[in-house]
This record gives sequence, structure tokens and C-alpha cells, in this order.
Amino acid sequence: MYRLSEISQKNWRIVLVRPRNPLNIGAAARAMANFGFHDLVLVSPYDSSWQEARSAVGAGEVIQSARAVDQVIDAVAESTFVLGTTSGSRRNLNRETISLRDIRPLLGERSRAVALLFGSEKTGLSNEEMSYCHHLVRIPTEPDCPSMNLGQAVAVCCYELARGGALDPRLVKTHLSDPANQQSLDHVLERAARVLDDVGYLKPKSRAATLIKLRRLLLDLDLTESDAKIVGGVLAQIEWKLNAQRSRSSAS
Amino acid sequence: MYRLSEISQKNWRIVLVRPRNPLNIGAAARAMANFGFHDLVLVSPYDSSWQEARSAVGAGEVIQSARAVDQVIDAVAESTFVLGTTSGSRRNLNRETISLRDIRPLLGERSRAVALLFGSEKTGLSNEEMSYCHHLVRIPTEPDCPSMNLGQAVAVCCYELARGGALDPRLVKTHLSDPANQQSLDHVLERAARVLDDVGYLKPKSRAATLIKLRRLLLDLDLTESDAKIVGGVLAQIEWKLNAQRSRSSAS
Repeated sequence: MYRLSEISQKNWRIVLVRPRNPLNIGAAARAMANFGFHDLVLVSPYDSSWQEARSAVGAGEVIQSARAVDQVIDAVAESTFVLGTTSGSRRNLNRETISLRDIRPLLGERSRAVALLFGSEKTGLSNEEMSYCHHLVRIPTEPDCPSMNLGQAVAVCCYELARGGALDPRLVKTHLSDPANQQSLDHVLERAARVLDDVGYLKPKSRAATLIKLRRLLLDLDLTESDAKIVGGVLAQIEWKLNAQRSRSSAS
Repeated sequence: MYRLSEISQKNWRIVLVRPRNPLNIGAAARAMANFGFHDLVLVSPYDSSWQEARSAVGAGEVIQSARAVDQVIDAVAESTFVLGTTSGSRRNLNRETISLRDIRPLLGERSRAVALLFGSEKTGLSNEEMSYCHHLVRIPTEPDCPSMNLGQAVAVCCYELARGGALDPRLVKTHLSDPANQQSLDHVLERAARVLDDVGYLKPKSRAATLIKLRRLLLDLDLTESDAKIVGGVLAQIEWKLNAQRSRSSAS
């Protein structure tokens, strides 16, 4: 079930994950302002870089109102759709990528709080960070020089995403029931992890990798808020049962 | 009369006019490489910036093969179509601008050696520099923050211009007779200036401004090489006549 709603720059959040270079932070913020984006969040920035970027001469509103958080989940908690950027050079991503040009058509069936993640200058997004992303977005660079400067990558993405223009928001379809945000999905995952630990499904060696796969699977389900509540309820019930059995068997 | 030909990144030259910041020069070169552009020319760069950009760690092929020249005409001499970028904030340009998005359709009727000019970080392109441009191109930034960082502006333009992709060159129409390049037009203009000086049309005070207007006019005529030869011939004939009359009257 869908309803029509508007998507414009105000629905977007730009998230820089572990940025190291204050010039890049400043450049990203400037490009955002150039194209009408205002919501900037930094995940675990190098402290000195962040201070330097904020105090730079000419640092504009975007950077003044930006927030720094510790974890990716804190940056995307309220987001209902998360995209991660990649240079597309990493052939071993084990995930399909979509071209930057195809984001806007894709949004046609998506909701309104969208986060776009950019990885650190050196390493890009880690597998764990990518596991929060519904899709990986590839900027169509040349195979022999795929990796973009962070500030320039943000500029190109903002340019492309703003093509509709602030004054000409696109009409897009969204779920009639609100899609689950990342916080709700994370609650579900935490609960699932407890249950799976409990039943011995998660092995110490592969635990982190398995949880990443599970988060992917959850995202692919496209749960609504109401779906997430139901799944959470199911898991809570299982957890309760396991605990009840344990206390019964220890009592017997 | 038109013939079909291909336009791809190799038909483009990126020209930075009076760039001041070596980081911007390096960033522009990197963005060019990201999107498959290779031909970079700098007009009158700050010497130290140019040296610093060339010797920077990781400076790639684009910057190694870039040339520095003294004048805009040296950078666009072989170009048959010249575009200048502007932030679009200067309402007093006295010229229409086209959006970056509209360049590629526009090229449909243009020829193959295209130069895209970027002005200095501080001042953009001067009126004199703009007079070499067939069109001014506006990157569609927000009115309250129109001015882009130079490296980011180059990135956004290269991204947009490469949208067709290096492997998918667009078929475009060009004049059957080659369009006049900038050097041929400059020869015409020089000859015209001599004639107009001779006949007292150019006044010392307004001479520079009038020549700028004349260059605009010449561009708007869309002359072919053969047209330029004809106009040059006409002017040469006038010049000869004026000289002949002068020597006759001084002899009499």
C-alpha cells in the first residue's frame, strides 16, 4: 500500500563515517550548502579534525549545526532508508551496487528519511558499516581511477540528488504504514542476537559476520514499523520461553 | 550541413584560469581522472601553486601532462567551442547562462574540440575571459550559497559531462565544414582591430570593451574555417586599400 509524498533535500542526511581530514569535512559541508542539503552527521570523526573544521574561517551553517556521534547506528537511527557510497573498485563486496544515477528512480517506492553514508578517506565503509545500508551506491568513475576525494564525492552526490531541485520536489510513493527506522530494526536485531546466543546459533568466531548477514537480511525484508513490532514481539516471546525453561530446569 | 561524429571525454579540455590554490589544482586533476578526462591547461597559474601541485605526492598523469600558458587564447586556440563556468550569482553578467544539465543536448550541433573554462577561486572569470566563451554555464547551486569550491565544481562538471560514459560516446552532429577555431577567429579580430584603429572607430577609452563586444559578435556568427578565411581576406583587402590611399596622399 502506498501514498504519495514529497522527497526533497530536507529528507536527506549526509553521514561522514570516521573522516580524518578537516578540509574534507569543510568541503563536504560547503557542497551540501551549495545544493541545498543541511543535515550533516559525523560518525567518530578524528577529534582534532572536527574541531578544526568547525572553527575554520567561513565554516557555514551546515557545519555549525552538524552533530558528531559515536556509532553508525546513532547517525541512522531515525532513517528509514540508508545508502552507502563505494568507489565500485572493490570487486569483493559480495553485494550488488547501484549507480548514483539510479538512486532517484529507486526512491520512488521508498520513504522520507534517507541517509547517505560516506566512508573514511583511507578505507571507505567497513563491512560492518555497510551492513546498515539498504543499497550500495557507486559513483560512475573510471575503472583505472575509481577512488574519489571525499569532498568531491559529496559534491557529486548532492548535485545528482538535487537535480530535481528544491523548488521542484518529486512526487514519490511511500508505504502507507511507516517503514521501520534503523533504531527499530536494531532493537529487533539485538533481541535476535540474544536469542541466537542463547540457543548456541552464534559461534564466537563467526558471531560478528553472522550478525552482519542478519542485519542485511532484516533490511531486505523492508519491514514497516508495525512489522518490526511484531517480529520484536515474537523474539521477546522466544526469549521469555527460553528463560522460563532454564529457570524451570535449574529449579528441578 | 552536418555530419555525424563522436563526442567523448577526449574531446574536452578543462582550463583553469589563474588558479591560486595548489590543492584545488590537484583536486581538479584528480576529478578529471575519476571521470576519464585527461586534457588540463592552466592559464597563468600562481607559479608556486603550480609547482606545488605538480610535485604533490600522488599527483597523477593528468597533472603531469598538464600545460601552463600565459593567456586564455593560448589555452583555447585549437578549440572550436568554448564554455565558461559561472556561479550564476552575478546577475549583471549581461549574458544568458545555460544550466550544466543542458550542455550535452547543446553539443548536438557543435564540433569536437570543446574547452570548459573555470575562473580563479576569488573572482571567477573576468569579462575579457568570458568573451572567449560561446556560452556561460551555470552549475545549478542554491541562490543563498551559489559559489562552489573550484575542485568540487570541476568534479561536478566532469561527472555531468561523462554521464554518457566513455564507452558510450554520443553521436552528435557537426558542421560539414570545420568550424573556425579560436586562433582563426583571433586572427580575424586582430585584423579587424587594425582596420578599426586605422579608421578611428576604436577610441582609446572604450577600445578594450569594444573589442570584447566584437569577439562576442564573432562567436555568435558561428563561422566555419572557410568563413573565417573569407572575412580575413575582406579585412586584409580593406587594410591594403587604406594603406595604399595613405601612401598615395602622402606622396601627393
